[in-house]
Amino acid sequence: MESDLRSALQQKIDNLNKPKGSLGRLEELALQIGLVQGTLSPTLSHPCHLLFGADHGIEREGVSVSPREITWQQMINFTRGGGGVNMFCRQHGFDLHIVDVGVDYDLTSYPEIINRKIATGTGNFLHEPAMTYEQMNEAIQIGADMVEVCRAKGCNVLSIGEMGIANTSPSSIWMHLFLGIPLDQCVGAGAGLNSAGIQHKLDVLQRSVFRFVSEVEHDEQENPIEIIRQFGGFEMVAAIGAMISAAENRMLILVDGFIMTACMLAASRLYPDVMKAAIFCHQGDESGHRLMLQGMGVKGLLNLGLRLGEGTGALCAYPIVESAVHMINEMNNFQNAKITKYF
Amino acid sequence: MESDLRSALQQKIDNLNKPKGSLGRLEELALQIGLVQGTLSPTLSHPCHLLFGADHGIEREGVSVSPREITWQQMINFTRGGGGVNMFCRQHGFDLHIVDVGVDYDLTSYPEIINRKIATGTGNFLHEPAMTYEQMNEAIQIGADMVEVCRAKGCNVLSIGEMGIANTSPSSIWMHLFLGIPLDQCVGAGAGLNSAGIQHKLDVLQRSVFRFVSEVEHDEQENPIEIIRQFGGFEMVAAIGAMISAAENRMLILVDGFIMTACMLAASRLYPDVMKAAIFCHQGDESGHRLMLQGMGVKGLLNLGLRLGEGTGALCAYPIVESAVHMINEMNNFQNAKITKYF
Repeated sequence: MESDLRSALQQKIDNLNKPKGSLGRLEELALQIGLVQGTLSPTLSHPCHLLFGADHGIEREGVSVSPREITWQQMINFTRGGGGVNMFCRQHGFDLHIVDVGVDYDLTSYPEIINRKIATGTGNFLHEPAMTYEQMNEAIQIGADMVEVCRAKGCNVLSIGEMGIANTSPSSIWMHLFLGIPLDQCVGAGAGLNSAGIQHKLDVLQRSVFRFVSEVEHDEQENPIEIIRQFGGFEMVAAIGAMISAAENRMLILVDGFIMTACMLAASRLYPDVMKAAIFCHQGDESGHRLMLQGMGVKGLLNLGLRLGEGTGALCAYPIVESAVHMINEMNNFQNAKITKYF
Repeated sequence: MESDLRSALQQKIDNLNKPKGSLGRLEELALQIGLVQGTLSPTLSHPCHLLFGADHGIEREGVSVSPREITWQQMINFTRGGGGVNMFCRQHGFDLHIVDVGVDYDLTSYPEIINRKIATGTGNFLHEPAMTYEQMNEAIQIGADMVEVCRAKGCNVLSIGEMGIANTSPSSIWMHLFLGIPLDQCVGAGAGLNSAGIQHKLDVLQRSVFRFVSEVEHDEQENPIEIIRQFGGFEMVAAIGAMISAAENRMLILVDGFIMTACMLAASRLYPDVMKAAIFCHQGDESGHRLMLQGMGVKGLLNLGLRLGEGTGALCAYPIVESAVHMINEMNNFQNAKITKYF
């Protein structure tokens, strides 16, 4: 079935009036989108952006150049429309849902922020697991619930972003543990650490991994659930829940930069088919991100040197995804264009 | 004056509520656009796409996988809305102007095609100059005239594309002669030559360059006007005229792939300031294009493996340019966002 559809899609794409393969990644995208939606004529409808925010216990160890308060300040800023994520949502017609899953600040007076706070930040994973099993399940459920909200509006393409100071740290550890890449190659400058700061961050993360392998039974150390809950942020686990739920519902998932790629990596260890729905939108300059994408066997669509987070890289790539859908639906083929098919 | 504006623009960009530099190439674009327009609050208005079509004498030497008739067939196809360029113009709101500057076919019965035919194709530059001085001036003038048409409608951002079977050949020679890169590194597969085809193309182009250096007086061999007229296509010289005229009028120029990059290179030898207005939109997989961009000291915005021509790479990048303008105009700064400025 899928192989029939795949060859029918490929035939349709190859017969458009252009040299074969000459629309490059747009052709790959059109094939993928057709397969996800199970059709030769895919559509994009009611795009939504989920922005999950939460704080991290590990921030207490000075692993980030930005202070913890930036998380709640930016969450409020997003309600005012002046953040990076806001302007790109407006530009591309995305419905923005801002969800507090664990910010260390009372945001209940902001009705634009959906209150699903699990706790005021995760545990400090240098000393203890970031969250309990119950908290992890709750975060997964929040992600799934938000997908349902979007789906009910007719959404079939989902973008996900995050706000959580220090969340490159858990991302680096997931990359290290899931892909077996040495930790020092997984750690970068985050929002702007200098080299001493990066060294300190690496040291903290090495000690955190040491705690993990010391405390957790050997046959549990490769259990993705354990790896996720020991280090994850609530916003990251909510993203994982949203990704899996979106893929189950045959929605497309626009994957942003380093942190969202780490979430997709973790999600793929729980539900491998999630990767079929994933469009990797941006490849950052940080070598860690390139390595992670390579380790997952994928390549980002854009390479604009973005490192703001919030899902901005995913949003900026959306017109490219739209172009692929326009191509497969609107471009003439050699017959109706009356063009000599030259190969 | 320009340095004052430059520092004011940089200050405005740095004070937006994001880690400094974290919007990467969008920040560079916003700076460039502000400088071109001479303002801290740039705008994009009435984008236009000029599509110049013409045939090439060198096509008679079998340097292209596609036959000559594809040029006129595609020109007609563009009038029907089913070409690659059409759908991307629709997607991004570009006004499309299709101009026949030298197609080897009577297109006068298609009112959508502006008839500025100079001749039914250029001379075969293996044996003679591609065009006369008069023809070259006429092509430059057509480019300038079309810019005036766009400007009269309020356009301040111009995209340029081409349709002309065999036009990677003159592009390769311009790259070779203007940048001093060995010819074999400037020649690629075009729309899909195999390795024997590439070898034949290289041989034809080597002999063409040999004719040029044998016939043209030594001190004229580095004269850009001579290099342009000896090898250029009418559609390429019209593009050069449009680029220079657009830059003089402080319009932005979206530069497409290999052929349009070669035209921008040639234009910059006539009027160096044209580069200030140029946004290089797409970097193809062909190593020749990468080398040419490197030789010009620039980098493409997208890298989607496109090699269709028509200006499709430029059009696909337009939303990124829009994102840069949204950023500088709409994003909150640290003061009005009430965010701790953390560095």
